[in-house]
Formats: sequence, C-alpha cells, structure tokens
Amino acid sequence: MSGNSIGVLFRVTTWGESHGPATGAVIDGCPPLLAIAAADIQAELDRRRPGLIPSASPRREADRVEILSGLFAGKTTGTPISLLIRNADATADAYDGLRDLYRPGHGDITYQAKYGIRDHRGGGRASGRETAARVAAGAVARRVIGRAGIVVKAWTRELGGVVAQPGSPEAAAASPLRCPDPGAEQEMLARLTEARAAGDTLGGIVEIRVQGCPPGLGEPVFGKIDADLAGALMGIGTVKGVEIGAGFAAARMQGSACNDPICPGGFTSNNAGGVLAGITTGAEIVLRVACKPIPSIARPQETVDAQGRPAVVTIGGRHDASVIPRIVPVCEAMVAIVLADHLLRQRAITD
Amino acid sequence: MSGNSIGVLFRVTTWGESHGPATGAVIDGCPPLLAIAAADIQAELDRRRPGLIPSASPRREADRVEILSGLFAGKTTGTPISLLIRNADATADAYDGLRDLYRPGHGDITYQAKYGIRDHRGGGRASGRETAARVAAGAVARRVIGRAGIVVKAWTRELGGVVAQPGSPEAAAASPLRCPDPGAEQEMLARLTEARAAGDTLGGIVEIRVQGCPPGLGEPVFGKIDADLAGALMGIGTVKGVEIGAGFAAARMQGSACNDPICPGGFTSNNAGGVLAGITTGAEIVLRVACKPIPSIARPQETVDAQGRPAVVTIGGRHDASVIPRIVPVCEAMVAIVLADHLLRQRAITD
Amino acid sequence: MSGNSIGVLFRVTTWGESHGPATGAVIDGCPPLLAIAAADIQAELDRRRPGLIPSASPRREADRVEILSGLFAGKTTGTPISLLIRNADATADAYDGLRDLYRPGHGDITYQAKYGIRDHRGGGRASGRETAARVAAGAVARRVIGRAGIVVKAWTRELGGVVAQPGSPEAAAASPLRCPDPGAEQEMLARLTEARAAGDTLGGIVEIRVQGCPPGLGEPVFGKIDADLAGALMGIGTVKGVEIGAGFAAARMQGSACNDPICPGGFTSNNAGGVLAGITTGAEIVLRVACKPIPSIARPQETVDAQGRPAVVTIGGRHDASVIPRIVPVCEAMVAIVLADHLLRQRAITD
Amino acid sequence: MSGNSIGVLFRVTTWGESHGPATGAVIDGCPPLLAIAAADIQAELDRRRPGLIPSASPRREADRVEILSGLFAGKTTGTPISLLIRNADATADAYDGLRDLYRPGHGDITYQAKYGIRDHRGGGRASGRETAARVAAGAVARRVIGRAGIVVKAWTRELGGVVAQPGSPEAAAASPLRCPDPGAEQEMLARLTEARAAGDTLGGIVEIRVQGCPPGLGEPVFGKIDADLAGALMGIGTVKGVEIGAGFAAARMQGSACNDPICPGGFTSNNAGGVLAGITTGAEIVLRVACKPIPSIARPQETVDAQGRPAVVTIGGRHDASVIPRIVPVCEAMVAIVLADHLLRQRAITD
Repeated sequence: MSGNSIGVLFRVTTWGESHGPATGAVIDGCPPLLAIAAADIQAELDRRRPGLIPSASPRREADRVEILSGLFAGKTTGTPISLLIRNADATADAYDGLRDLYRPGHGDITYQAKYGIRDHRGGGRASGRETAARVAAGAVARRVIGRAGIVVKAWTRELGGVVAQPGSPEAAAASPLRCPDPGAEQEMLARLTEARAAGDTLGGIVEIRVQGCPPGLGEPVFGKIDADLAGALMGIGTVKGVEIGAGFAAARMQGSACNDPICPGGFTSNNAGGVLAGITTGAEIVLRVACKPIPSIARPQETVDAQGRPAVVTIGGRHDASVIPRIVPVCEAMVAIVLADHLLRQRAITD
Repeated sequence: MSGNSIGVLFRVTTWGESHGPATGAVIDGCPPLLAIAAADIQAELDRRRPGLIPSASPRREADRVEILSGLFAGKTTGTPISLLIRNADATADAYDGLRDLYRPGHGDITYQAKYGIRDHRGGGRASGRETAARVAAGAVARRVIGRAGIVVKAWTRELGGVVAQPGSPEAAAASPLRCPDPGAEQEMLARLTEARAAGDTLGGIVEIRVQGCPPGLGEPVFGKIDADLAGALMGIGTVKGVEIGAGFAAARMQGSACNDPICPGGFTSNNAGGVLAGITTGAEIVLRVACKPIPSIARPQETVDAQGRPAVVTIGGRHDASVIPRIVPVCEAMVAIVLADHLLRQRAITD
Repeated sequence: MSGNSIGVLFRVTTWGESHGPATGAVIDGCPPLLAIAAADIQAELDRRRPGLIPSASPRREADRVEILSGLFAGKTTGTPISLLIRNADATADAYDGLRDLYRPGHGDITYQAKYGIRDHRGGGRASGRETAARVAAGAVARRVIGRAGIVVKAWTRELGGVVAQPGSPEAAAASPLRCPDPGAEQEMLARLTEARAAGDTLGGIVEIRVQGCPPGLGEPVFGKIDADLAGALMGIGTVKGVEIGAGFAAARMQGSACNDPICPGGFTSNNAGGVLAGITTGAEIVLRVACKPIPSIARPQETVDAQGRPAVVTIGGRHDASVIPRIVPVCEAMVAIVLADHLLRQRAITD
Repeated sequence: MSGNSIGVLFRVTTWGESHGPATGAVIDGCPPLLAIAAADIQAELDRRRPGLIPSASPRREADRVEILSGLFAGKTTGTPISLLIRNADATADAYDGLRDLYRPGHGDITYQAKYGIRDHRGGGRASGRETAARVAAGAVARRVIGRAGIVVKAWTRELGGVVAQPGSPEAAAASPLRCPDPGAEQEMLARLTEARAAGDTLGGIVEIRVQGCPPGLGEPVFGKIDADLAGALMGIGTVKGVEIGAGFAAARMQGSACNDPICPGGFTSNNAGGVLAGITTGAEIVLRVACKPIPSIARPQETVDAQGRPAVVTIGGRHDASVIPRIVPVCEAMVAIVLADHLLRQRAITD
C-alpha cells in the first residue's frame, strides 16, 4: 500500500538506492510449479544493460541477479521470490558536488521536500537504476503470463523526432536501438551522436504490443486494465504520456470511424487497442509511451542550492544520450507485471 | 482491492448499474470535522447533468444525492460517508433489442466474456452513469484538499478537432462546453450540430489544472502521483490517452529545453507539469486527457450476436453527441480523489 | 484499506450509524452467476433480530434489506452488491443525556479521542447495530462458500457461567439461545432473568464450526487463515478472546498429546482446529470466542463528562441482558466472509 | 495483499525459507529521519537466538543482519528498508528423510495441499526461522513507536503448566526464560528438563504489555486495533489463542464488574485491556497468547507418506523443548509492527 509495491495478487515490491549496497525485488503471489532459473532473469537484465549504443553510459553495472527464496528444485513454490542485485560499481564520489544542489528535471528537490532528507548519490531511490529490479521481477511475470500464452514486446517508434516504420519483433530485437526500421535507426543514431556532442539528450516514443491475451482481464471501474497499464507505465521515471489504441488521435475521430466493428472472428480494426470498458477484448493490446529526454545533460544549468540561493549545476560523469533503448525492457516488464496480476485475479472468479 | 475502489487512505468505492435501482459511493477515510452538506455534493452533480448543450441526452436524470452516513451535525465524523443516488428515470425498455447484440465500442462483449453474464440495460455497470457516483465522491475529496488550499479546474481544450485557446477558469465555468474561448466554442457547437445530424459523435481533449498543491505529494516508485493520476484518468471510460506537463511533446524535445530551470521562486517553466520523480514540486499540475467519441451512434453498425453470428445493431434512444462537456467534472473528481488520498498519506509520515 | 473494509478479493465494506438514516454494506468481488434473492439475506438478518428471548431489547428494528446493485435476473453479475437497511425506528431522543457523558465499556470516549467529534446517539458507528450490515454481507459470503460445500455453524457454549454440552446444529438452531443443551438453556435463561432484574448483564462463549472446508485455504505468513479468522472475530465489538482447536488448553499440553496423528483418512484428533501453519487441513475448523457482558447496564456508573469532570451516568432505555444469542449469526457471518475471500484467493493460484 | 505482507502504511514483507540462501524483510513506509543502526536490529535478533536455555536448539544461527537500503548517513530516508539475514548454517541433510513424510503438527501436509510442491527442508517457509525477519522488522517498528513514547514488553506468564507471578520488565529481561518470578522460573526449567528427557515438548502463555500508547489508535470496524493485534499474534506459528484485557474471563463476568469505571485520571480498572470499540484508550494494552508445544518431538509419530499410506516419522536433529522464551521477542515485534502502522494511520487524519 505504501509506494514501492504494485499488484494485488501478483505483487512486486522493489527496494534499493542507486549507490547503496544493492537493489532488489520481492515477488509475492507467484503461482507454484513454474520453472524459473536465474539465467532467465539474467537474460532480461542483460537487455537493459548499458553499452547497447555508442553513446551509452559507460558505467559497468554487473547486474548479476541472485535468487534468495521462493524456488525449490528449480520451480516456484508459491512463496515470495526475493531477488538481489548488488551494486557492484557504486562509487559515489562523482556526486559529492550534488549534495547541496538540485538538478533540474530530477527528483532531488522533491525527495528533499517530501522527506526532509535524501540520498543524493546518483539520484538515490529515484535513479533509473531502480528499474533493474522491475526488469528482474518482470522476468518472473513474463513466465506467469507466458504459461497462458501472453507475449509482450516493445519497440522504438520514435527517437529525437525520427519516426520509425513498424517491423517484426525479431528486427526490433536485433537492433541496438530496438528499432525495426533500419533507415530510421541510422538516422536516430546520427541524432544521438549530435546530441551527445552538444552535451544534450533526446526523447522518444516506445510502443508496447501484447499478443495472446485472453478476453476478460481487467476490473470494472477502478482496476480497469487500461488504467492499471497507464499507471504502471506513467510510473516509469521518464514517461510523460501514455496512450492506448488510437490514443490521442481518437480525440479527433468521429464515432463511426473510431468504433471497431465486430465480426465473427473478432474486430475489423483496433482503435480500442484491445480494451473495451477496461476489460481485454482478446485483440492485440497496443500502448505507446512518451519518454522525455534524460535530464542529466552535460551543459551547465540554472538551479538553486539547499538554502534556496541561485546556483549553477554541472553534472559530471558520462550519461546516456537517451533513455531509449534501455527503457524498452522496462516498459515490457511493467506491462507483464500488470497482466500477471490481472490474470490471477480473473482466475479467482472463474470456478 | 477488487475493481470498484480507489485510494489507500481516502478510499472511494462506487457501485450501481445504469438501470438498476440506484448508484452510489462509499467514502472511507475522510478526515473528521469537515463541514459538508448535501447541497455541496448536489452542486457538483448538477455540473454533470445532461442538457448543458442542445445536442445532449434528453434523459432527465434526477440525480438527487442522499447522504446516508458519516456526518453528524453537518460535519464529517471520520466514519464512512455513504452517498445514494436513485435512478429515477430508468426505463430499460429501449434496451430490449440489445440483450443479444454487442454494441461496437462498448463493454457489452467484454463484460460477457469476463463474467458470463451482464446487465445489458444501458451498459449496466459500464455505463457513463457510474461517473455520477465519482462526481459525488469527488465533491467530498474537493473539501479535503480544499482545506489544504488545493483547487482543481478542468476545461475543454479541443472538441471535434477545434482547438481552443486557454482562458480563465471563470470563462470556462460560464461556458456550456466548459470552453473559455468563445470563438472556438461557437465552432465546436457547430461541429456538434453537424455530427448529430449525421448520426455521429465527436471526441476531444480536456485539460486539468491543479493549483495550490504543496510539494511532497506522491510515493517513490509505484504510487507516484503522476502514475496514480494517469491511472485514475485512464479509468474514465472515454479516455484513451493521458499526458502530464509537456506530455507527448516532450518526446521531441532536447534535455536542455525540457528541463525546467530552478530559481529561488520555483521553476521558470513547467514542462514537468508539477511533478518530478513522481512527487509534486509545488508548481501547477497540468494534465490532458484524450476522449474518444461516444460509441453510441445513431447509424447502423456491423457486429455479432450472442451466438457469434454477424448482425447489424442500431442503437435507439437519443445520446449525447460528445462526452464533452459532461466529462469535465468527472476528470476533476478523479484528480481530487487521488490528491486527497496522497495528501493524507503525506501527513502520515510527517510528525 | 481504511477501517471499514475487510477482504482482498471478496471485499466487504460496511457503513452507517446506529441512529443515522440507514446502514449498509457493499460487497465487491462476489463471483458472477450465483443465485441470490433478497429473501436469502433477509433470513439471515431475521436470525439476528431482537426479541429472541424475553429479556431482549424491545427496539423493533425492521431491518428490511434492499439490494441496490450487482444482481441481474436473480443472479450476481460480478459487480458490487450494494445492500441497504433503513433505520426504521431510530428515535434518538433517549440519548440526549449522553451527549456529554462517556459510558463505561463503550467507545464514546475513544471515538471522541480519535476524531474530535462523535455521533453520540446510540453509539453511532460503534453500535452493535453495525453488525446488521455484516450479517447481510455474510449471507452473500455463505452462498460463495456454500457452492464449494463449506458450511458455517455457531452455537452458544457458555452463558453467565453455565456451560452447555455440544449438540446437533439443528438443536442449536431451534433454541432461542442457540444452545443445543436444553438443561443448560433453562439455567442460562434463569441467569438472564436474574441479571436483568439486577440491572446487570452477562457474558458468554460462542463456538463456531466450519464443515466441508477444502485443504489449502490460507496464506503462508501474514494472511494465515487462523490469523484472519481471529482478527475478524476479535473485530466484533463484544469479543475479548479468540481461540482455535485446543486453544488456551494447548498451552498446558505436551507435544506428544497436542500433535494430531495423521492417518490415511485424515487426522485422529483435532487439537489443531483444522489449521496447520495457517492453512486449512480439510478437517473441521473449530473456533471459540469470549464475549464480554454488554456494557449498557441499568445501574448508575462512575464516569467523567466531556470536560473531564467526575459524573454519574445512568443509561436509559431497555437493553439486551446478553449479546448472546444475537451475536451468533454475526460470528458465522465473519467466518463466512473470511473463508469466501480465501477461497477466491486460492483459486487464483490454481490453474 | 498476498500472504507475506502486513500493514497499510508501515508495511512489512518477509521472505525466505528455513534452508534457502537467506531470509529477510522489506519495510515500506518507515518515516524518514529516524536514527537506526544495524546494531539496533542485531540486538533484537540476539534476544531471539537459540541457546538461551540448556534445552535449546544447538543450531547456531549466525543471524547477522545486513541493511541493504533505506538509510543514508545513519538515518531512514522514507524509502524501503531491506534487511538481509543469510542462512549461515543451513545443512539440509537432516531433512532428507522427510521429503515424503508429513510431520504431525507441522505445515508439511498443508503446504503440499495448497501449492502441490513444498520445500521440505526444515519446514521451508513455515519454519520458525521466518520469525527472525519479523523480529528484525520489529526492531524498526519499535523505533517508530518509540519516538511517540510507546514501549512494548512481553514476558512468560506460564510454561508447562507453571504459572508465574508478574514482575518488573527488568526481571523478565534478565531471566533466560523471560520470567520475572524466580521461583516459577526454577520450576519451569525443571519441567523443560523432564520434557526433554521424555522426548517431548511444552506449551505456555506469553503476556504482552504496551505502555505509553496514546488514545485514538485503531479503526472503527474492520481495522480495530484489537482485531489487528489478535490477527498479528495468531499469525505466529505457535499461537492457538489470543485474549485482550480480561479476555476469556470476561465471559464469566457481569457488566457491572467488567465495565472499567472512568475517572478524571483515566480508568480505575483495566478489563478492557486498553481498547474500547477497537480504539486505544490510553491505558496500558494487555494481551495474552497461548503457545502450543513445539510439534517437533523426538518420539516416533503416526503419519502418512506422500502417497497417503500409513507411516511412522521420527524427527531427527535436536529441537527446542519449548517455543518459550524465543517467541517472546517475536510477540513484541508483531505488536510493535501493528502499532507503528496504526500510529501512522492516525496521523493521516489529524491536521
């Protein structure tokens, strides 16, 4: 109920600061008898590792996951699964100058306002590093929904203003930018190089698609599947907008065009994005999220210090030029976690 | 935890079907000693009434609220507040033909898939009528946050493709379309008339602004204020997209432009929309939602019947040509409910 | 999460004050397609009515339940079931003298301390009247667990120091005191008459037995079935102690006697009371609760007034001489509600 | 919401199996700016260590706690506190013979029934070892309530049928059995030696007293403080009964004797045990729990194997002859955790 858990039956709690000893997750409510190995979780973490693109963060996060509980003889037992990721390379010296300065676009100032104290090193709990725990938990969620035939795939639809054409999931997976359109990918890389040279960063749009989802997932009014998915995705630090199906374009459509006609095999269009009245239809679920540019830029920025006096902050170290592509598996993880929870909830009411 | 409640400490549960005996809400966790009268709640319900615009639904919902508990001598006592709204004009005959047909864009087919049964009359639980209970509960939430100086106002930013210029809250309140731009309002009304004549419906965009919110509201990772707001807004039946601050436009900005510089008085821009790392900054919170066109159109539509056979459905009765303006107070209510909950949660950790 | 709801998936929220307009319950998460009629709920309410014994409260609570939502054509739809009970006979004049006095053994003083305000009429929210809503919700829970073959029956084991011998559920049901031992019942009635004559009240012990419960219900550590049952029963206003199986007697047993040997057909004894490690074994669940004497006695009592000055309070009106037998269906209702919730939770993890 | 978390605002999740790599807890919702060191938590863990009495388990659990998150510069930051205790001495060989046998009085058979799989080594998740995580989390809870002046102390009131007289908390703390009555303690030790020689085990009663608790903690109906305390204590594996104040004795009292008269300074008796209508009065909270004898006895016991065939099980290794005194800090921890949660909840409704 406090702010570090998500889900009702499949419940994920994450913990850990960027430069503390470790980060991790506890998954409570995972059904028993699922075969899961540390390697499965590791594979997802590796998709989130730095170094995917030339401009990426040089921090070498080992990100080795250790499973501390909840498995016996390679299978889940129904008890909580505790996942631990040590912060191997957590030298915090680079952050000494930030103890008394608030970085624009970061949570420094709000954590201080909320708690009257903060771990300023690397953003503490507000660091993107926390998403490693989400991805690890998401790997377990993928197993839960995978057993029901549900697959979640995300891809880079836009980066730095470059719009990609859709492509196959395989093409997206093979791309360092998770972009299935090779031409767009080249242009995106060029923009990243430019931005990096200018000490700046770029935003983009990620699209998430869910295939194989049965109809009936989602609750009537306040636990609607689209509401829970939107909340889970908006809860990723970088995300400033979420849409489903036709999304914002629906605001400019007429009802006769927006309604998806129903035919014996399903629907002849998918403006709904796989959800009607908050419950899955069985059609593909399609979501898009808007990612803001990473706020850690190399240029000096106007700010205030802890005493409220004007100051200039320059963020040292090297940072990614875009949250894309590393955010892609995080989006997938959040969607998988929400779906796993709703899958279990739906089972509860079905004799 | 089931799907008809929202909030942790300020918790709203709604119930009721469109054509059942009544609809209502229970508010648990409202602080004591707030002066509230039925008239305060009624005033909010009246802002949601039909008949605001010529094209609106002629159904005359009495929507008289009765307070059944939780108040004593005009003040809240801290115990649950039960609100009851009788469905005065709930003749369900018009829906007899829909017992075995699924209306495109509606939840008929998904409720049937989820539960194996549904109240088909007027959409049952999935009806927009359920939002009356939200608005009533939101009136109580407004009091809770109002005591802390927080005010929530929404307005119509776009309707049928017509984009309005911002204006004063007073101008928006005075407009039947909740649109503060008189020129745009005229054009919107024209589009509504056209759509109505064509048996069609229109979508639009509503913007919600929150003033006076103190810094520090929101939880670190999974109960972020922007995540909870996005989830609450996406949970309104008509909403297909939500954005905060710069929103989708942030995806095309550079970090140096997107970061809001911090100055002694606050921020010199508001691309963040009043939230950093999921916690309020003290700046104005700015949200926008994309509303799809109402799916109940007068034209015949392709669908299937309960046996999965192709069919054509024609929706009788008269319906609104747009969810705007009636959705405006619903958006406000959801934002107020989320803020009330987080305001109480923040108090809990402050000695 | 606030204090007027119980359950995770089968979730009951009650509301209402003793002398407000009404009391009621919302049940969220009831599975669809259960046949339930208002008469089924009414039958349970009638088991809780006053007038069962000569010494009982003369207040004639109509306690007519109205179902406001969640049913269609006589069956549950999966949406919230709202139950309403009007307070037909709620003249509050008798309580005028209690506005500024705290009755010993009552919640007057604690509600005032907690909220800074209270509805003093008849105990407000802390009145035993609130249990009518629990019994109504329990009638729905009984249907949920009844479909799985689970039956809950309680009986009066002790009253005013008179200990009854066990008997058949039918004998208990036929007894006005819910006591299957006719000799003990006569003695209990005599004690009640004496107590009443002396302006005093009596306590007792109720035993609850659950038959047909499948093994596997309950969660590992913090949602153990015995923990949830104990919490639910201790949450009845009159209850000061709860035990399961051998209960307090187990504290004086040796392990070799306390352990229930396991045989192919089950267990050869039931000191565990049907629960091992917080999970049902499939054996009968046996619980006992200690009920204190009703604090509303006719004799003058020492107290303080709202200003903290010494005072004497004399409680007018006529009150029951014991919470037994009216508490019996309340105990059953609470057990049924907890079991319904855990039954659904168990289904969620079973493919 | 799943079964390994407790609390709404101060929320504790535990994880870990007896013979897995580690056990631990995540505490979410701890207020910021509390000074806590690993040594504070370690001190509580040491009170739960084996070897307190001659007959105790010889397993040398290192039980060294490591704080992995949530603190900065020695103070809590408001973010989740993750506590890790490695299982240093977890050779599971002694349990090989138990893979296919269900030990009477243990959760072997119910875990298997619930999940279709279990970690049979040392009881897995159902092991008393799990309580180490509770004690660690309880040490943090003690800090939270300690700042408000609330102190929780438990002592051994009865063991093997020997009833102790009350004494000072200091005397209880100094006793290896946590028994402040030296004469009773000697007799208890003699009974333990006898039981051990006979290959048997003993039960007992622990009393928990809370001093300094302000009035007003607890929720009206389903989150009553006594209900939550009873649930938390019944959720300790060994506990079969819980009572508050006069407890079961109240069932035999008359109202005139049971009601605690109110005087300007408080109450002139404490049959209520510090709680009226589920809300604290400000008086001392007094609870008692009945602990069954540990089910791991040295004698051969009748049981069945995994195929349901009759079998005899003999439990190897050396086990404690009583859960007392090691359960004493566990009881304290659970009470502290519940109080911490309610303390924060009460703050939320107080401006």
